[in-house]
Amino acid sequence: MKQVFAIDIGGTNTKTGLIDSDGAIVSFLEIDTPKSGGVEAEVGAIKQAQESLKFDIAAVDAIGIGVPGPVDCDGVVYNPPNLKGWGEVHLRKYISECFGIGREKIFIGSDATMAALAEFRYGHGKGANPMVMVTLGTGLGGGVIIDGRPMGGKNGFAGEFGHTVIDPQGYRCGCGRIGCVETIVTHKGIVRTALELLKKDKGSLLWGMMEGSFDQLTPKSVQEAADLGDPTANKTLEITAAALGQLLANLINTFNPEKIVVGGGISLWGDKLLEPAKKIAHKNALKHLAKQTEIVRAKYVKKAGVIGAAANAFACLERV
Amino acid sequence: MKQVFAIDIGGTNTKTGLIDSDGAIVSFLEIDTPKSGGVEAEVGAIKQAQESLKFDIAAVDAIGIGVPGPVDCDGVVYNPPNLKGWGEVHLRKYISECFGIGREKIFIGSDATMAALAEFRYGHGKGANPMVMVTLGTGLGGGVIIDGRPMGGKNGFAGEFGHTVIDPQGYRCGCGRIGCVETIVTHKGIVRTALELLKKDKGSLLWGMMEGSFDQLTPKSVQEAADLGDPTANKTLEITAAALGQLLANLINTFNPEKIVVGGGISLWGDKLLEPAKKIAHKNALKHLAKQTEIVRAKYVKKAGVIGAAANAFACLERV
Repeated sequence: MKQVFAIDIGGTNTKTGLIDSDGAIVSFLEIDTPKSGGVEAEVGAIKQAQESLKFDIAAVDAIGIGVPGPVDCDGVVYNPPNLKGWGEVHLRKYISECFGIGREKIFIGSDATMAALAEFRYGHGKGANPMVMVTLGTGLGGGVIIDGRPMGGKNGFAGEFGHTVIDPQGYRCGCGRIGCVETIVTHKGIVRTALELLKKDKGSLLWGMMEGSFDQLTPKSVQEAADLGDPTANKTLEITAAALGQLLANLINTFNPEKIVVGGGISLWGDKLLEPAKKIAHKNALKHLAKQTEIVRAKYVKKAGVIGAAANAFACLERV
Repeated sequence: MKQVFAIDIGGTNTKTGLIDSDGAIVSFLEIDTPKSGGVEAEVGAIKQAQESLKFDIAAVDAIGIGVPGPVDCDGVVYNPPNLKGWGEVHLRKYISECFGIGREKIFIGSDATMAALAEFRYGHGKGANPMVMVTLGTGLGGGVIIDGRPMGGKNGFAGEFGHTVIDPQGYRCGCGRIGCVETIVTHKGIVRTALELLKKDKGSLLWGMMEGSFDQLTPKSVQEAADLGDPTANKTLEITAAALGQLLANLINTFNPEKIVVGGGISLWGDKLLEPAKKIAHKNALKHLAKQTEIVRAKYVKKAGVIGAAANAFACLERV
């Protein structure tokens, strides 16, 4: 069976693993992403991880990599916001030189696209055409798989659903625009919504959970308070689900997808977020389109990146 | 040279023509779309048009058709809103039987997709990958061409950009949702914006242009008043351009297109609408994406449908 050395580079940590072509993880190691030293430090850390995993790099069929930011078809990564000091980096070249592996065996894509490919090849979007992926976490990422291939756009940058506006009266986004979906349906967006609502609810359970520090207010604490029936936490969920539902309806009308897969950390919230969002999406999308699209939760969350990086590499190998 | 009998079915009239594979119109006839009698009356009218055009239907290489509504891959048209009494109709079957032409030589698509193919094959989006088309008229239609093929989605319904929400505080759309782009950047939307603004401007030139009837207020009169420096007309343009710009930015972030082509009747307004919309789009899209996309005006407006229906047929013939 073919094997891929898969790497999921994140802002905080980097996941590495040896993965079979049926999606099984043979070995796995999570390391810290170096806080300084840029791409060279990161590639060095990946090399160490590979040595710890004790497999022969020359024996793998390919190296698959997911990165948290824009990457073009040549494997050049452009200023990933969560990787300090990277700038514009020819990652494929660095990896090729470090491991002595030909560039034609190194496949790199954005983490959002990798997550989409993981679901398409091994997960809950298996074989769907088209399949749209929405990843909810620190940011809101997207990916579209058409006829089994990622829709990359001109430079491989397509799928930035997080930066489509759904509320021009809303908050300013990190990208400079006002009202991007990402200002609401992300970790930070949820915390902000809760904080806004807390101003008018001095009795919320969330105050106690924060233990005097606003930093303790997280999507997880909001979810816990909602489970206990806290009105502000439930209202936060409702606002988040409404925005997610509007995005999903827009995606249905735009792509006429067979399936939309919702993944990422926030998707672990489960039915309290996804079920109302699904209802809003199906109610708001055009009728003849709405009934065509199934909206499902992702199979992979924490390992979506490595599984996807491997899925991408296997798919590319098959096409050669 | 190959030739296609091309048909563009609209709510008011139907355009027919014999078209060469280089996009040249050999002969052309515009007829009224029958107001009653459903698909059978329409197919009869098309047959009459073909006879008036005096060419041998058995000698054409294909029949290409554009319809104003959702159509699936089998050539079944679903309740086109502007074609009364059609319901769900197997148009390919009707055309095949009426003309005695095999179904494999009949190619049907939505008018928005046809317009996109016209620009991709013969117009201002020639060869762009991907190419996104936005058609501004009675409705707001969309089409995406990836690797030379229309992005149809699961059932051929993709590209309904007009029904993506950009203002949840906005007007209710014909589709039932609130704040669709189509509520602003269409014929009706422009008239409504102007009427809202006129409430506070009793001195506007538009009042004189209306000659006592609100029906006389059209996008064209707004444009004329704007050319004469009327503040309300200019403000209407500004609001329309802002909404169009937001849509274009969303499309850049979603598709990373090489080109966006803006067509349809309203695009004839020219620079006063498109130039500010382009600026807003490029300012609002993510930086690394914005600089990749050129936004251009369509080459075809009134004949986009027939040229596109032919372009689609030729492209399909080449793939067989």
